Amino acid sequence: MRGGAADNKGQIFAHVLGIEETLREKGKLPINLVLLIEGEEEVGSAHLEEFLLAHRDELRCDVIAISDTGMIAKGTPTFTYGLRGIGALELKVTGPASDLHSGIYGGAVANPAAAVARLVASLHDAHGRVAVPGFYDDVAPVADWERAAWAKLPFGDADLLKVTGAPSLFGEEGYSSLERVWARPTAEVNGIGGGFQGVGTKTVLPQKAFAKLTFRLVPQQRPDDVMAKVKAHLREKCPPGVHLEISGGHAGEPYLTDPNSADGQAAQHALRRAFPGKEIALIREGGSIPIVNTFKKVLGMETLLLGLALPDCRAHAPDENFPLANFYGGIGLNRALLEELAR
Amino acid sequence: MRGGAADNKGQIFAHVLGIEETLREKGKLPINLVLLIEGEEEVGSAHLEEFLLAHRDELRCDVIAISDTGMIAKGTPTFTYGLRGIGALELKVTGPASDLHSGIYGGAVANPAAAVARLVASLHDAHGRVAVPGFYDDVAPVADWERAAWAKLPFGDADLLKVTGAPSLFGEEGYSSLERVWARPTAEVNGIGGGFQGVGTKTVLPQKAFAKLTFRLVPQQRPDDVMAKVKAHLREKCPPGVHLEISGGHAGEPYLTDPNSADGQAAQHALRRAFPGKEIALIREGGSIPIVNTFKKVLGMETLLLGLALPDCRAHAPDENFPLANFYGGIGLNRALLEELAR
Repeated sequence: MRGGAADNKGQIFAHVLGIEETLREKGKLPINLVLLIEGEEEVGSAHLEEFLLAHRDELRCDVIAISDTGMIAKGTPTFTYGLRGIGALELKVTGPASDLHSGIYGGAVANPAAAVARLVASLHDAHGRVAVPGFYDDVAPVADWERAAWAKLPFGDADLLKVTGAPSLFGEEGYSSLERVWARPTAEVNGIGGGFQGVGTKTVLPQKAFAKLTFRLVPQQRPDDVMAKVKAHLREKCPPGVHLEISGGHAGEPYLTDPNSADGQAAQHALRRAFPGKEIALIREGGSIPIVNTFKKVLGMETLLLGLALPDCRAHAPDENFPLANFYGGIGLNRALLEELAR
Repeated sequence: MRGGAADNKGQIFAHVLGIEETLREKGKLPINLVLLIEGEEEVGSAHLEEFLLAHRDELRCDVIAISDTGMIAKGTPTFTYGLRGIGALELKVTGPASDLHSGIYGGAVANPAAAVARLVASLHDAHGRVAVPGFYDDVAPVADWERAAWAKLPFGDADLLKVTGAPSLFGEEGYSSLERVWARPTAEVNGIGGGFQGVGTKTVLPQKAFAKLTFRLVPQQRPDDVMAKVKAHLREKCPPGVHLEISGGHAGEPYLTDPNSADGQAAQHALRRAFPGKEIALIREGGSIPIVNTFKKVLGMETLLLGLALPDCRAHAPDENFPLANFYGGIGLNRALLEELAR
């Protein structure tokens, strides 16, 4: 391709990655760089593993860098060394052959919507803890250094309340909010439904109801093991008079890397150069980036998560935004990372 | 009006009510008959009370007869002497300002869908009993004669399973299915919803969720009293971190009349003449017919519920049906009732 647009795109890309300036100043890059550009991340990266397997040799490298995470606060250089994993499932409860009149039959025929509510409620105790037997068996405790470091971060409960607009915070007893979202597993209802959905009253005993659940997992939980425990718990808790069907969704391992490995320290140096004057925040994130585990599984490589989104960037939402300071800071970070990884 | 169609309608009406034949045979009706024709029953009878108040004198009578209930089984003359009342409410739980990413925030922010499930689950214990404190305080026990009579009715659990298609029956311990639907109060979820409703997984922590509830009430429960107890219970059970809003719906008193009063015995005689050879079934019904209480309140009159629908008539559903035998039997019942009430 020779068009100006294509040339511009390449130029912009080289500029953003810090390659252009490095080449201009030094004449060559200090390390070999393999670029993997993926366009399917938001739709589940369905073909990435296949691609990695087919191009394993060309993609061989020492470490991977991805910028898909966030900064804990504006101007605070942030290194993410852990992600939660995920397990998803959907439960569908069916009862009578069709919706019934809740006056004529209510009391003698079990209500699938009530059964789904009962099953969902059985997932937690009153103290915000997941009540599935064995759920916490393999959960690695929050390390003392993590607890201490996270308590000093410039992002606390007041920020969390402001960002989410929640009336108050609530979670597992004995843990701070950051510990709850970064280092503790959860059970969440992503969707629930059944019966009459319109305005007003319709006295129906629904034929069926559903709940969509996801479980965020942390090291050393194994998705297959945890999801088997969850399914056994739900089957045991299912009330009489209804039929329960559980269908599995996607699952992904949690991720944890050593922020003080040689590569981790190089990344920290680069962050310090790009965002000078502030202490580096060593954090985990509560979300899941499944490709990080795919890289580890197929290529055997650790990933440096060096993201630049701010807590109020409104990712995937109306008014999504990204500050110019972070854009230019990111270019500086990429240039510094090339040099630091070369040492 | 002189058109043939109008004449025909009047003729059909007089025929169905047993008036035409009675006039032909006897020359006059044995009692004074006031006909009240209402066309709003299926949309809540919003103007009926106003009409009754405005025409109280013209509508003065000794007893009211309505055919809006059912027969317990084909060919079995059935007299309904009780109906359950109803109380409706909707609960809406709100949490964060918008749907949140369940990975990034899950664990630290309460989930409104989980809260609604918890509230709905709090309505029952594991034995099918409503767990709202004081809910059963004023419930009149099933009379011994009722328990004995209902146990002999030609409609049992096998019929109920067949009619509903439910995998099994379930309800309050210590009561038969008919006792559960006719003489015991219930809490039903008519609709529940919140979060992602589409196909597959969306890892969202919903901003809000709702449940639509109705409570069937029996003598001597008072809707206002029971609904106040339900609301207090829900407010007490609402988990932290969310905002609960309860909005009231319609309410209606339960109804119970004496099947062996003079008018009740007249109705039983009429039923015996119209459907000879079988014992009369004295039943209650689980649904609510609010106009019956409106009649009682405004006109001070009891109502004879002499319905002819069969358990498999599929009321309000596809393939709704009504057997010709019941149609002709109904005409005979109306004729006999005119005579029996005259004695």
